[in-house]
Amino acid sequence: MATLGLIEYQDASPEVRAVYDDIMATRKTDWVNNFWKALAHDPVALKRTWEDIKQIMAPGALDPLVKELIYVAVSVSNQCDYCIASHIASARKKGMTDAMFKELMAVVGMANETNRLVAGYQVEIDAPFQ
Amino acid sequence: MATLGLIEYQDASPEVRAVYDDIMATRKTDWVNNFWKALAHDPVALKRTWEDIKQIMAPGALDPLVKELIYVAVSVSNQCDYCIASHIASARKKGMTDAMFKELMAVVGMANETNRLVAGYQVEIDAPFQ
Amino acid sequence: MATLGLIEYQDASPEVRAVYDDIMATRKTDWVNNFWKALAHDPVALKRTWEDIKQIMAPGALDPLVKELIYVAVSVSNQCDYCIASHIASARKKGMTDAMFKELMAVVGMANETNRLVAGYQVEIDAPFQ
Amino acid sequence: MATLGLIEYQDASPEVRAVYDDIMATRKTDWVNNFWKALAHDPVALKRTWEDIKQIMAPGALDPLVKELIYVAVSVSNQCDYCIASHIASARKKGMTDAMFKELMAVVGMANETNRLVAGYQVEIDAPFQ
Amino acid sequence: MATLGLIEYQDASPEVRAVYDDIMATRKTDWVNNFWKALAHDPVALKRTWEDIKQIMAPGALDPLVKELIYVAVSVSNQCDYCIASHIASARKKGMTDAMFKELMAVVGMANETNRLVAGYQVEIDAPFQ
Amino acid sequence: MATLGLIEYQDASPEVRAVYDDIMATRKTDWVNNFWKALAHDPVALKRTWEDIKQIMAPGALDPLVKELIYVAVSVSNQCDYCIASHIASARKKGMTDAMFKELMAVVGMANETNRLVAGYQVEIDAPFQ
Repeated sequence: MATLGLIEYQDASPEVRAVYDDIMATRKTDWVNNFWKALAHDPVALKRTWEDIKQIMAPGALDPLVKELIYVAVSVSNQCDYCIASHIASARKKGMTDAMFKELMAVVGMANETNRLVAGYQVEIDAPFQ
Repeated sequence: MATLGLIEYQDASPEVRAVYDDIMATRKTDWVNNFWKALAHDPVALKRTWEDIKQIMAPGALDPLVKELIYVAVSVSNQCDYCIASHIASARKKGMTDAMFKELMAVVGMANETNRLVAGYQVEIDAPFQ
Repeated sequence: MATLGLIEYQDASPEVRAVYDDIMATRKTDWVNNFWKALAHDPVALKRTWEDIKQIMAPGALDPLVKELIYVAVSVSNQCDYCIASHIASARKKGMTDAMFKELMAVVGMANETNRLVAGYQVEIDAPFQ
Repeated sequence: MATLGLIEYQDASPEVRAVYDDIMATRKTDWVNNFWKALAHDPVALKRTWEDIKQIMAPGALDPLVKELIYVAVSVSNQCDYCIASHIASARKKGMTDAMFKELMAVVGMANETNRLVAGYQVEIDAPFQ
Repeated sequence: MATLGLIEYQDASPEVRAVYDDIMATRKTDWVNNFWKALAHDPVALKRTWEDIKQIMAPGALDPLVKELIYVAVSVSNQCDYCIASHIASARKKGMTDAMFKELMAVVGMANETNRLVAGYQVEIDAPFQ
Repeated sequence: MATLGLIEYQDASPEVRAVYDDIMATRKTDWVNNFWKALAHDPVALKRTWEDIKQIMAPGALDPLVKELIYVAVSVSNQCDYCIASHIASARKKGMTDAMFKELMAVVGMANETNRLVAGYQVEIDAPFQ
């Protein structure tokens, strides 16, 4: 169970509702996922985190799908089950195909493997990489 | 210092040289970075790891630059200094601009933050994500 | 299911019961949580771990609540669900309010974010910090 | 070397200087540490991260020293050398004594140990913790 | 639920069945665990990962049981529940006794503790270790 | 530089010297590595940690070399440079050959890879593993 419980829309303060409304409008959905309902107990954190994410995940030099793939990659490396499930859903919505997902997993797995080979073999950084 | 030292091309066995040659040919460079020289003490692992990486990082449903960005994202989450330095170099070579790097970092930082908010608030997976 | 199962009080050896008794007396509770019942299969580890924790979590230069907050912070960073749930309970018992919990989460989230920004931007340690 | 280099005050744009000035004013120091100089290549991220940290680390339900101790705890668990060095310096400035540091380390070490014992013994969450 | 679902033997393509058959033959079992059924959506990754594991886990300078113990140690440090459960099962099959499991956990816990003490105390590598 | 500096034998209190003496006697060496000299600022933690390690790393159901291999595996997964260097040295002293080290690295790398494949593919634990 969520540590402080979840705050549903009908029970939310106006400032929390404003964030929920913006989440739904930005994402073009009619529901808000549990992460925000859990964080809503701290309306300042809710607003700050949502504003940060909205800014960071917006189209820019990287397209939104690539950003979602990166989000999944980090969540998988951190073994965060909720984050994996929710960001796979977001990535699919933004165009991730099964073929893309499979390649993503292959790269994430390989990177986690070679990160440790580097550590164990105590490899020093090559001059051209510095 | 590398745990077992580094094996330079001139000191390498024919099977190791064959991998080095393939690395240089595939990457269109005239040098081999320390990771491979360290791993070359285990020629079977050298060949297996290189064949795996070559297969995984090849163009597919995801383009090679996106794959490198994902590699950097994982390496940053794991705090692997060598991997960060070397894969930033690879990513640049494949077209990563400074603007892309900055957005990549923003996403990686945000994902690491929200992964922990999810854990601490003990957020349960929403039905639509299952 | 716990790897080796849980050892209940009535099934425990005298040496395990002695630890259980000390846990309940020290914590002023009438039950023992699953962590200890799982570890009880290794009575030497049970005693060692309990003695270590009792020594480390006792009042000292840091007060016990601060120590519990730190315990939660680490458990959240490691994504250990059991540890998060049990140490949030302990922290509440020692006086953690909802307001404190929310600030704790904000700091933990931020630290996990900036840790990765530092890694990716490859920031060198400032001379005054060395 | 920092990935994009460091931006010194004299080379900074007005918006970056404004953040540097606020950092120095808030912290009552006359210098800015490398983290900010590295992040300054992304002025939007610089401002967002600084505003977030200033809000999160301000006195509240938890005092600023406790927040710094938590920051150190997370950085140590993540093995982020820069973050450990810089936040130990911040914590000292806010009143962390050697005795407090030693107890902090003991708790962080113990938490990392028991987190893994929990994982390996596959301990299920007790009903009262849910 | 598995991201892409599980592919059962009767629904598998000939190339996937060939891997399943080899897994069962190598392990002398009559079933295939979920990991492979999930990965089977990417037959190339399935074959590559299985071939890698078969090569790596085969008897060599380290005996297969020791390799399984190491696999458990890593999985516990990474807090990967599935991997812990499945590799404890494999380790038992290769001869891990309860006594061995308990000692394994003690070492893993201690290593995770001292890793962080080293980080926090910022210990420099001794010359003889370099 | 070590956070609190290192305490050399000639500057150590009798209780710290007693631990140093026991470390050298147990390990049959004439020097003490930096980890202990850094931790010596907290004589209670020094004694507790040394007693714990001595108990845990002693011969038992697992032989001391296997325990050192596990210690290296964890340290590599955590990317703790000092711990990797020092425990590779310990493992060599207890009989780790180059061939064993290479196989150890292969297993650690593979485990870190498959741990993430499991997470991303969201594989559920098979009934027989529970």
